[in-house]
Amino acid sequence: MQKQKIRINEERLKNTIERFADFGRTEHNGVTRLSLSTADIDARNYLISCCKALGMSVKVDDVANIYATMAGTEDHPPLVMGSHLDSVRRGGRFDGALGVIAALEVARTLHDHQIKPKIPFTLVDFTNEEGARFDPAMMCSGIISGKFEKRAMLNSTDSDGVTFGEALAASGYEGDASHRLNEATAYLEMHIEQGPVLENEGLSLGVVEGVVGMVNYEIELTGESDHAGTTPMHMRKDALFAAVDVIGLLRKQLDTLDHELVYTMGRMQVSPNIHTVIPGRVAFTLEARHKDPDVVAQVVRAIRNLPESLDGCRIHARKLWERNTVAFDHGLCDRLIQSARELGLSYKRMYSGAGHDAQYIADGLPAAMLFVPSVKGKSHCEDEFTAYEDCARGVNVAFDTVLSILTEA
Amino acid sequence: MQKQKIRINEERLKNTIERFADFGRTEHNGVTRLSLSTADIDARNYLISCCKALGMSVKVDDVANIYATMAGTEDHPPLVMGSHLDSVRRGGRFDGALGVIAALEVARTLHDHQIKPKIPFTLVDFTNEEGARFDPAMMCSGIISGKFEKRAMLNSTDSDGVTFGEALAASGYEGDASHRLNEATAYLEMHIEQGPVLENEGLSLGVVEGVVGMVNYEIELTGESDHAGTTPMHMRKDALFAAVDVIGLLRKQLDTLDHELVYTMGRMQVSPNIHTVIPGRVAFTLEARHKDPDVVAQVVRAIRNLPESLDGCRIHARKLWERNTVAFDHGLCDRLIQSARELGLSYKRMYSGAGHDAQYIADGLPAAMLFVPSVKGKSHCEDEFTAYEDCARGVNVAFDTVLSILTEA
Repeated sequence: MQKQKIRINEERLKNTIERFADFGRTEHNGVTRLSLSTADIDARNYLISCCKALGMSVKVDDVANIYATMAGTEDHPPLVMGSHLDSVRRGGRFDGALGVIAALEVARTLHDHQIKPKIPFTLVDFTNEEGARFDPAMMCSGIISGKFEKRAMLNSTDSDGVTFGEALAASGYEGDASHRLNEATAYLEMHIEQGPVLENEGLSLGVVEGVVGMVNYEIELTGESDHAGTTPMHMRKDALFAAVDVIGLLRKQLDTLDHELVYTMGRMQVSPNIHTVIPGRVAFTLEARHKDPDVVAQVVRAIRNLPESLDGCRIHARKLWERNTVAFDHGLCDRLIQSARELGLSYKRMYSGAGHDAQYIADGLPAAMLFVPSVKGKSHCEDEFTAYEDCARGVNVAFDTVLSILTEA
Repeated sequence: MQKQKIRINEERLKNTIERFADFGRTEHNGVTRLSLSTADIDARNYLISCCKALGMSVKVDDVANIYATMAGTEDHPPLVMGSHLDSVRRGGRFDGALGVIAALEVARTLHDHQIKPKIPFTLVDFTNEEGARFDPAMMCSGIISGKFEKRAMLNSTDSDGVTFGEALAASGYEGDASHRLNEATAYLEMHIEQGPVLENEGLSLGVVEGVVGMVNYEIELTGESDHAGTTPMHMRKDALFAAVDVIGLLRKQLDTLDHELVYTMGRMQVSPNIHTVIPGRVAFTLEARHKDPDVVAQVVRAIRNLPESLDGCRIHARKLWERNTVAFDHGLCDRLIQSARELGLSYKRMYSGAGHDAQYIADGLPAAMLFVPSVKGKSHCEDEFTAYEDCARGVNVAFDTVLSILTEA
């Protein structure tokens, strides 16, 4: 007969979520905690005090990523769990913070039960994941996994003209490059879904098998800016009409591709954007995401196959950037599923449509993610919410998975 | 047998166009001559010196409209001819200025031939027609014809924070309200077409029978701003897709209306306008113009008949403003046509799609306009151009028309 499973402390988890939300809490119960801001530094200090209270040893690397480690009884690379404490402006209380707090609750539960793991357990807080203060997003997981050049990143400048390098030096969190995460038994990141799928399907958990690849194009239509009152319809080269027709052509094709494809024309600039002038130029972005590179390639083909001109306007498409699909570790996903099943929790295997630190860490280390439902799919806003019971379900699954790894080596 | 017709001096006309273009000429041979700017005041001073050299008496009203009058031998209200000397930023050499210069050339030709008209002939330069420095356009023809309240207009502020009242006081051109134009035998305004129709049809002149009426609506689509990576297509409320579909619905209907209808979606705002976020709100303008109020009413009906929602987004349309069709004086148009025919020039009767001082002056006084071709329909830009021979053709027609009126009383 199986012994009674250990459960995390749901009440403590809820209180800790709210305690961290005090660092930068906004008028409408959201959070503004830009990376290395006072609110972020206060949250970091508090995190470290919590970890030290559990006897964890704390190290900081050269780009302010924090690692708090509970020692193992044997000499193995640590099992690492965490996410990020920074937020966007007027963001929510859960995005990122929940992953760090989940790791803290796992450590606290190990400590509660005086479990001495064979493998070390390390909590991590990655710096500047959101990219809301310093561009790009996922900056410091990207630096330590070789995606970004540190030197270039140090010059990234916030809206007040402060560089990341300056903010780093002033933060007191500029540690040593030798502390960077470079080996691990596994990396696990719990995160809110930031989409409506789990809630919509009535599921407790998403076992994240990877992060979808994406392309982002800018499509530009060039016509003629003429007087809206004096130019007959048949003599116009209206770039907005052309844009509308190009969007129609693209939707027609993209809607026949796989149902998991998502695509968005999120940004559109109309020039000169005056009500009495026929638009002479329109540029819009087309961003498409899918886990299967073939589907993404079909999107690119649809863009490339656009005619050279339409409605008298020239069409020009250029790729702004792309990102390949990242696959997470199958074994780790299977372990998460096993834990979820043992706890009787509903789940689905899914890909993340959003980017996360895990996707950079996964390049070299076995990584996976666990999603908990986002109410109405909202994130990056003050009404971002995940029910505390859903948070607790996720942390229980994470705890069981972590425990099984930590003790089996 | 008919005596030899008097012709205006084409070389002098060309030189005068270029002389006036020196006031505010831009690097690329356009003109920046904002109302009551130094360039405009210099042009006004030069205009007055030209008029005085012909023995004309000059008066200025309380909003800086200039009237230069060649006396008549009988006591009649004057025949008034003119336009405006102000331009938009980096505008052309012809828009407005040509109408004033045409009146000057008519006066010069009368003077050349020592014609003593029975009816006085008055050249007018209206202040701030473009509205490029002080909103609204056609400000000072609007004030003297009761369309705008002078007191409100005096508070209109330019981009440097200077009010029209302050600029007026500083200009030296604040005259007396008793000088305002309030009676006239007729008002004639020659202007560039600002559209491509005359050039396209190979015609020399447009006899303008009126100014088309217009409506301007803002149509707003409200959906949900969600994450572009995590929100499945079927769960989206994408305001840009809704806007595209609404534009499609509108075009389908408007394209079945009269072929002379022009309509433009000139301004579009997408929110939040970030490539990774589904647009939650899109607002665009729909501006439509036609001489027949019934056609404009059909456009309004198409807007009002839009569904309340589409693609999960609410649709809200609101009227920003409208302007009724203005009909010019039939008799004056017929006289212009007679003069064109006598000179063997090709012409068409047409409506102006753009607004002009004449449309306000026409409310109370018999008015008409004469268009000359715009190369490629361009105006309000540095490459605005009308061939000098075309300008001369227009002034010859104007001269003959003016002469016939001035001498027949």
